[in-house]
Amino acid sequence: MKFTINQHVFSKALSDVGKAVTPKSLIPILSGIKVIAEEDGIRLIGTNADIIIERFIPISETNNNEINIDQTGSAVVSARSFIELIRKLPEPIQVEVNNHQTIKVKSGDIFTQFNGFRAEEYPTLPMINQSNTIHIDAEDLIEAIKQTVFATAKNETRPVLTGIYFSLSGYKFTAVATDSQRLASKVKDVYTLGDASFIVPSSSVSELVKQISDYSGTVEIHSADGYILFKTDQVSLYSRLISGNYPNTSKLIPTEQKTTLFLNKESLVKGVDRACLFAGEWKNNNITLSIQEHKLCISSGSSEMGTIQELQEIKDLDGEAELKISIDGYFLMDALKTIKDEEIKIKFNGTMRPIVIESIHEKSSYLHLISPVRS
Amino acid sequence: MKFTINQHVFSKALSDVGKAVTPKSLIPILSGIKVIAEEDGIRLIGTNADIIIERFIPISETNNNEINIDQTGSAVVSARSFIELIRKLPEPIQVEVNNHQTIKVKSGDIFTQFNGFRAEEYPTLPMINQSNTIHIDAEDLIEAIKQTVFATAKNETRPVLTGIYFSLSGYKFTAVATDSQRLASKVKDVYTLGDASFIVPSSSVSELVKQISDYSGTVEIHSADGYILFKTDQVSLYSRLISGNYPNTSKLIPTEQKTTLFLNKESLVKGVDRACLFAGEWKNNNITLSIQEHKLCISSGSSEMGTIQELQEIKDLDGEAELKISIDGYFLMDALKTIKDEEIKIKFNGTMRPIVIESIHEKSSYLHLISPVRS
Repeated sequence: MKFTINQHVFSKALSDVGKAVTPKSLIPILSGIKVIAEEDGIRLIGTNADIIIERFIPISETNNNEINIDQTGSAVVSARSFIELIRKLPEPIQVEVNNHQTIKVKSGDIFTQFNGFRAEEYPTLPMINQSNTIHIDAEDLIEAIKQTVFATAKNETRPVLTGIYFSLSGYKFTAVATDSQRLASKVKDVYTLGDASFIVPSSSVSELVKQISDYSGTVEIHSADGYILFKTDQVSLYSRLISGNYPNTSKLIPTEQKTTLFLNKESLVKGVDRACLFAGEWKNNNITLSIQEHKLCISSGSSEMGTIQELQEIKDLDGEAELKISIDGYFLMDALKTIKDEEIKIKFNGTMRPIVIESIHEKSSYLHLISPVRS
Repeated sequence: MKFTINQHVFSKALSDVGKAVTPKSLIPILSGIKVIAEEDGIRLIGTNADIIIERFIPISETNNNEINIDQTGSAVVSARSFIELIRKLPEPIQVEVNNHQTIKVKSGDIFTQFNGFRAEEYPTLPMINQSNTIHIDAEDLIEAIKQTVFATAKNETRPVLTGIYFSLSGYKFTAVATDSQRLASKVKDVYTLGDASFIVPSSSVSELVKQISDYSGTVEIHSADGYILFKTDQVSLYSRLISGNYPNTSKLIPTEQKTTLFLNKESLVKGVDRACLFAGEWKNNNITLSIQEHKLCISSGSSEMGTIQELQEIKDLDGEAELKISIDGYFLMDALKTIKDEEIKIKFNGTMRPIVIESIHEKSSYLHLISPVRS
């Protein structure tokens, strides 16, 4: 293998792929990145127990990549030190591998040699049947993930709850996450008619968001037994799936409400944020929402620190004007922060029933449900 | 006590003073900030075992502070939560304290109450005799600290080495730090003729640099038995001094050299940085400098990872053209990074003797000495 490449392009791609690599893997070769020089570009692969990231840097692409392949081939080199070195080298980079797994990197008057791994021993990529393909806009997929991933369970008591539940029904693509105290869901239109569902670990989708954040085209989703592949023309991210049955969350969502408040989202976020300062001592970050003198009262307090109480405008109110409920302030903030709307509505159904946050528009594409705290 | 104040001004000053406060102090009142409303402004004090920071926000100052004192007085309030709250409140802030140590903060429709400490129990500031005063430009003091503080000892085996040794002799103000493997010194002119010396903990001077970083006037240094005060018209920072005799470092500095190299500083930093990547495995971050074909060769390597070798231009050479020395690459980087000059000179005196880095100008105001590593 022998090639030259633009330093910036190589460094960026290595760093992206390196995100999948565990530096001190128990299996030494998995702490490496596989570099493959093909006829038409450079392919990079990194993996850990949960995901595989593959990036391809094509020769053609408007020539900005400045790639020149002298000899095809492959090598596996320790991710951390290789990424660090390439980042610190001047232009351009020349890489050469001889038969003895020694990777030579040259740049100007700088000569380095890395001891590599045996490329043949690197695991092969899973075969995924490309017939069950869902096509979705990258932006829509990113939004669906960001609006739900925070609500996945952090502990492993019920493994299915540690992932996002994606489902396709008709042309509707839904993402749902719940840790059984709160639930977040988001619906998006896709180009694909179908019927499918899968649970993807929250760490995998979080990494996916980073990998495709500057990409604006379509993402192909290929699912297989135990695996899923998210694919753009730049990057392929393979993830394991979480097996098991996801709970039927639709029946958790209340169908009626006693009170609906229409509120300015930004003011509410700031008010809840301040109230949380005084709630930190409580295990459940208890803050109280109530209606006082036709205003929303946000309050919180602890015997040690002190108290806070603030009043905010209610834009509109449907139903009963009486309300008092205690909920986890951080849960409320997590949900509100993902919403881009200026105004939102919150539905209440009594002190002991979950609250529901939705868009003010008739058909809300997102829904956040938060259970109350017994105070 | 009762006053109103601009939120930004109050928040910034509280946050600066809060830098001195240990959040979970064993002595509860020391986890607080003392707020004093005086006739002509607001005074804030925070402290820990090593330093005291005092800031004064005057009423007059072009009225940007928007201070209005309704009633003088003082209170001590838990630093962390108070700083956080003030940061999150809208304009303007109104503070009021009643007799029961309850601090009431009001801003618009937001009402909070903090449980305070008994202000009378807060420690008083040390009395410092203002006769022995050194006047120095803030910029010069900051530069002297930055160019030496990294070389202070990290372990406490010899306590005096954990501080910077400042000395005034004639109109010369000198800062010296050494951990016995390396030494950094910087000389500055001051407005004061005198003869004094003191050892200030590295943590105190590091905090001082942050507190006066945007200040361009003169700093007054008042020393007393066991204490030192750095004072500008905005902030007073009191620090304990380290007692003991600082070693006579002048005799460590070689008076002759076999080889002097004149080098581009930026290229050298980059080259040493790259070589360090391959030296990490060694306890001493061993890199080797040598002369090869009239160039400086920087090399490093480990049996596990691989090797690096690069050649750099020598701008000029005095003395013997033969050289090979192993030193700690990170020590070299630490020293080089503090230097602003484009070109520097390094003096060598054989494989087992320390190297000296100086300005290329006849009279160098800085000096870095690094002992070699036995390879």
